Amino acid sequence: MPGESISEARQLDLFEEKLIEPSKRPQFRIVGCVFDTYWIIEYNDRMLMIDQHAAHEKVMYEDFVKSYKEKKVVSQYIDPPVMITLDARQEMVIERHIGAFESLGFEIEKFEKNDYVLRAIPSGFMKLEERDIFTGLLDEMSDTVSDTDEISVIHDRLAQMSCKAAVKGGDRLSLMEAEELLTRLLSLDNPYNCPHGRPTMVEFTEKDLEKFFKRIV
Amino acid sequence: MPGESISEARQLDLFEEKLIEPSKRPQFRIVGCVFDTYWIIEYNDRMLMIDQHAAHEKVMYEDFVKSYKEKKVVSQYIDPPVMITLDARQEMVIERHIGAFESLGFEIEKFEKNDYVLRAIPSGFMKLEERDIFTGLLDEMSDTVSDTDEISVIHDRLAQMSCKAAVKGGDRLSLMEAEELLTRLLSLDNPYNCPHGRPTMVEFTEKDLEKFFKRIV
Repeated sequence: MPGESISEARQLDLFEEKLIEPSKRPQFRIVGCVFDTYWIIEYNDRMLMIDQHAAHEKVMYEDFVKSYKEKKVVSQYIDPPVMITLDARQEMVIERHIGAFESLGFEIEKFEKNDYVLRAIPSGFMKLEERDIFTGLLDEMSDTVSDTDEISVIHDRLAQMSCKAAVKGGDRLSLMEAEELLTRLLSLDNPYNCPHGRPTMVEFTEKDLEKFFKRIV
Repeated sequence: MPGESISEARQLDLFEEKLIEPSKRPQFRIVGCVFDTYWIIEYNDRMLMIDQHAAHEKVMYEDFVKSYKEKKVVSQYIDPPVMITLDARQEMVIERHIGAFESLGFEIEKFEKNDYVLRAIPSGFMKLEERDIFTGLLDEMSDTVSDTDEISVIHDRLAQMSCKAAVKGGDRLSLMEAEELLTRLLSLDNPYNCPHGRPTMVEFTEKDLEKFFKRIV
């Protein structure tokens, strides 16, 4: 591609000065959205771009982890409940890890033979198939997972569920939805990265833009 | 400054495919303005940023050059006329280059001794002091400037006048004014650079943004 390369964007991280915190929220002005995906924000002498998918994924994940740690997970009841047939390995897993599943908000009980009734799933993931949420986690737990590994498997799975349940790039959000997403993102200790480590936001300073346009060298 | 450098913006130039032309205007969507200076535009799979000052300067300059070449320069009459006292060198210059001044839209006549009456200036530069427009050009012409150099001095001076008369970075334009500026800019053969050669716009492709956010490598 021709054209002159003239500058760069920066990914923010936790080693930056703590420039983003909830009390600064009123100073963030949403300018608009590009490609139904990237929100342009003006914040003092910085222009931020926020990826709506990564941001939403992050917010969902952190909300859930917080509820989980505080044992305040909310179950979402399924009406009618879903009947699920488990194989022998899955049965061994659910028996061993039933406590972990319950602490995540699942309600599951044996019906007959190897048929189980799924009555509730963690709230906040309603965009996904209830069955997939449950068996997805089940299949990553093995009957040999230790109690410490259990936590890490659960966290990985939550990240995957958040990613799948989050708004996508190309979904059109209203300005009000974007304002709400921004507020929730800024309330996090680390708003900068999604659970997979990708950036939720990048920044250009006013100086960066002046350099793009050769207003300054 | 900490943080990871992750990509670059591109300056557009005439060697690019001719992607910007008046017929494409309806495909340009103004997203918003950052720092009351840089307009974010979505154009198919590209995000453009336009510097309102460089763009306006360019538009004013090209409009004026076009009128000048087509001998359709419009004079802006000053009411009341301005009395200007010239020094000996300035008098020599105006006598030699009176034709050039007139073709630019100035109307100047001798009043008495070394006092001159300035009746009209080129239209479109009303933000500037009439006196400064005239003496600015006068002082760059010397009595030894050849006829070819005269043209180049005039063009340089027009660029300076356009720069001074154009909206500045930090001036707040309405959306309608920005739409109008964009339309005029896109109508130019070369919308990419201001008369001083600085870029009026830079671009990021959708792929560039995906790289910022590590959606693609």
